[in-house]
Amino acid sequence: MINCVNREIPEYIDGYGHVRPYRGAFANLGGRIKTGAKIKSYVPGSKKLLSSIEEAIEKTGLRDGMTVSFHHHMRNGDKVVNLVMNAVAAKGIKDIHIAGSGIFQVHEPLVKLIEDGVVTKITTSTFNPGPVAKAITAGKLRKPAVLMSHGGRPRAIESGDLHIDVAFIAAPSCDEYGNLNGTQGKSACGFLSYSYADAMYADCVVAVTDSLVPYPCRPIEISQENVDFVVGVESVGDPGGIVSGTLTVTDDPIRLKIADDTARLADLAGYIKEGMSFQTGAGGTTLAVASRVRDIMKDRGITGSFGLGGIHSYFVKMLEEGLFRALLDTQCFDLEAIGSAARNENHVGIGASMYANPHNRGSVVNNLDLVVLGATEIDTDFNVNVITGSNGVIMGASGGHSDCAAGSKLAIIVANLTRKNFCIVRDKVTTVTTPGETVDVLVTECGIAVNPRRTDILETVKDSDIPLVDINELREVGESLVGEQTCVKVTDRIVSVVEYRDGTVIDTVKMPE
Amino acid sequence: MINCVNREIPEYIDGYGHVRPYRGAFANLGGRIKTGAKIKSYVPGSKKLLSSIEEAIEKTGLRDGMTVSFHHHMRNGDKVVNLVMNAVAAKGIKDIHIAGSGIFQVHEPLVKLIEDGVVTKITTSTFNPGPVAKAITAGKLRKPAVLMSHGGRPRAIESGDLHIDVAFIAAPSCDEYGNLNGTQGKSACGFLSYSYADAMYADCVVAVTDSLVPYPCRPIEISQENVDFVVGVESVGDPGGIVSGTLTVTDDPIRLKIADDTARLADLAGYIKEGMSFQTGAGGTTLAVASRVRDIMKDRGITGSFGLGGIHSYFVKMLEEGLFRALLDTQCFDLEAIGSAARNENHVGIGASMYANPHNRGSVVNNLDLVVLGATEIDTDFNVNVITGSNGVIMGASGGHSDCAAGSKLAIIVANLTRKNFCIVRDKVTTVTTPGETVDVLVTECGIAVNPRRTDILETVKDSDIPLVDINELREVGESLVGEQTCVKVTDRIVSVVEYRDGTVIDTVKMPE
Repeated sequence: MINCVNREIPEYIDGYGHVRPYRGAFANLGGRIKTGAKIKSYVPGSKKLLSSIEEAIEKTGLRDGMTVSFHHHMRNGDKVVNLVMNAVAAKGIKDIHIAGSGIFQVHEPLVKLIEDGVVTKITTSTFNPGPVAKAITAGKLRKPAVLMSHGGRPRAIESGDLHIDVAFIAAPSCDEYGNLNGTQGKSACGFLSYSYADAMYADCVVAVTDSLVPYPCRPIEISQENVDFVVGVESVGDPGGIVSGTLTVTDDPIRLKIADDTARLADLAGYIKEGMSFQTGAGGTTLAVASRVRDIMKDRGITGSFGLGGIHSYFVKMLEEGLFRALLDTQCFDLEAIGSAARNENHVGIGASMYANPHNRGSVVNNLDLVVLGATEIDTDFNVNVITGSNGVIMGASGGHSDCAAGSKLAIIVANLTRKNFCIVRDKVTTVTTPGETVDVLVTECGIAVNPRRTDILETVKDSDIPLVDINELREVGESLVGEQTCVKVTDRIVSVVEYRDGTVIDTVKMPE
Repeated sequence: MINCVNREIPEYIDGYGHVRPYRGAFANLGGRIKTGAKIKSYVPGSKKLLSSIEEAIEKTGLRDGMTVSFHHHMRNGDKVVNLVMNAVAAKGIKDIHIAGSGIFQVHEPLVKLIEDGVVTKITTSTFNPGPVAKAITAGKLRKPAVLMSHGGRPRAIESGDLHIDVAFIAAPSCDEYGNLNGTQGKSACGFLSYSYADAMYADCVVAVTDSLVPYPCRPIEISQENVDFVVGVESVGDPGGIVSGTLTVTDDPIRLKIADDTARLADLAGYIKEGMSFQTGAGGTTLAVASRVRDIMKDRGITGSFGLGGIHSYFVKMLEEGLFRALLDTQCFDLEAIGSAARNENHVGIGASMYANPHNRGSVVNNLDLVVLGATEIDTDFNVNVITGSNGVIMGASGGHSDCAAGSKLAIIVANLTRKNFCIVRDKVTTVTTPGETVDVLVTECGIAVNPRRTDILETVKDSDIPLVDINELREVGESLVGEQTCVKVTDRIVSVVEYRDGTVIDTVKMPE
């Protein structure tokens, strides 16, 4: 069948199941009942503290075919996934579905577990380029990887679409009865937002900690009422590995021009104003946009309502300067953000469902004015790919990309039109992550393309000096510079199913030839 | 049928349903699946702010036969119950089940609504003596009132036993999208612990606020992801009405002796020690116990782990003196506690399920060492009544009484043996609230009775100067002072069903003759 972004999707995919095709950004509103978590009663005198990961695997009843979850707030510094999965493998357990919120280079040992059939399925919403993504692209994983958005993952958990048998939660600070947080302790990594749904819905929840504190641990980010067991380990991760991305404002003049144009367009369109809310990533260009927006806010004495998302030192600075009333944080991107999360009461942790789940009574992305996002490709219908390179190799997952694009009033993609022999604007993106109907503007060094749906923006900026171009022209300009773009040739083998935030399938990734 | 505390209980009660008889404090561990909340999807641009309670009643679809819930953190200062229920009545809606966490004297207008058939059922866990309790005792409510404990109420909600159609949450601080807290704002009342389960499971959630703050409201105690509508009103309540109970240490020499003996016994039995946890109410005698315990802790340089429960200024002082690492708070009993909740990060709000629900992965009462509780009656099997006077009139509900008795390592009842012509120790209590198997000690001015089950305590204190007596002797002493006690004569009409915290029926209240 053909879905609403013109992708041919099977009705049934082996190892995934029946497919609900994507029908539009707000076509599936999920009118149903949440799944019910398992009630387990711990009587007075119950002990939760176990002596090892091995004992935890035994006590939880972890066995062949189960789904095991993790969170990724330690990012590339994480040690818990490898610790647990190696112990699982050592026990001879097979056919495990890893439903971790993120997979990083540090998780390279999973490749061997995939080859050995210990891990046969992966569901995730964050993917950094690296060995696991390559192994999946190469068809090594027995079942297709399921790529979700940050809002789609808690949606799937809360609705019962994604049932977790055992959740392992890396806990930088935890007491013997399972109260825990991520903002304190030697391995503090910031709020544990992506694990809240796991803690509430998994059949069994294991806190893995390297900092056992006297009862009661506080602040209580995840409560004892949801935690089955506590295991002490030497280290849950290296906070130094959390820092990823550029994290400094670019000094490249082309990127600075893109940033400048982005801020000017957002301003002209009326989105830089008192009470504004803003999300941006931690890349060099997007941070440069934040820098320009900050200048405008300071000049005019504007106070924004909130900065959102993965939080970096730039947003911390803007909070401390009074440019935001609050930061609403789902993960910390650097040590400054972690420090702020621990100390500033206006730096508030929110769960991933509150952040971006489309199927609740209103997620925070709904309140977002302006988001600035990247892209690996964008097509002339404004569909964006952040999942695969043009060579078809998986190098990312949606993260909050499709969530913020759908929720925000103005979603701007910033990108260099060309890189080496590559043009970012294409007839057809390799993989659709974020549907064009939710993307408003593309800003490149060769001009700004506004989605024709946004007649309001076109009308507002038509007499300005904003260098508007049609997106088809941008493609032509780009191809005139780097040559015509070709599509990667793929086999029939589906290695990944790309779910839109509402649980419908927006695209698949097929193994390249 | 006869339940485990020798009460004759029908198998079926009109207006209540099939009865699960009480079979022991830990006999029903609730092995089942939690109920699922209704998924409702709010898309970007959704507005939640309504102009009036009347509009909220319309928008929520509130109609005949529905269950409506409230929380009682404003206690006798609450205005929301009357505001909403009078509006419900004005719309001609009938047959409403009020599932409020507490009913106070200020709710007297409910009596007329009961008489008019607007309100036909009440479920609650806190009852202050007054007009509504009297009306229920007099058989005016069409269906039996269901009295729960603080832990039993969220258990009932989470399990689906108590389904709430519309929850109205008094919110001293709230933003337009439904993020709210109880610790900020002109009507700040402290944490809103009893309403957390309502917010998570009600089909429709309405925040009622008199302090609409700029988005995002923070701290976020209840999140926008659970709230459907926000209504502004002039006042949600008078914080001055929160203060109830004595709130000062008694100066009555008899009560001081009881307090002194209680602290000495707890100390001898080994419960006043480093890391101890402690809950006590806000009455004059129990505060006197806290005062003695405090003296001992200071003398010996003891630091406790936590003070629990309804929090009063005495516990705030102990926190600030470093005698507790933390307070775990389910409601504030006075303005000092409210101030502390807003300002001290070691004064932590916890939901009622985390506090005392027996059917989760471990509630805080499980970690409680020492609790000091009151009683209106206690029988020679140590069963305690805090629900009815000996005249059969309802004057309370369990609150946390049965929860703490079950969870704590040492549950002490303090009471004057006699008052006027009344002896507190009886052959048989009028109504069983808390089963004797969970009550360890009774301290009176005429001696201390230890539950024979607690051979360890009897052994420890046998050679001390603690004035031990058999509880049967206490009854004889009391009756020799005030005369033989009689039981109230009752009709067959069941006016209230008393649920134990696990949802089984421990007793019923019948209308007096």
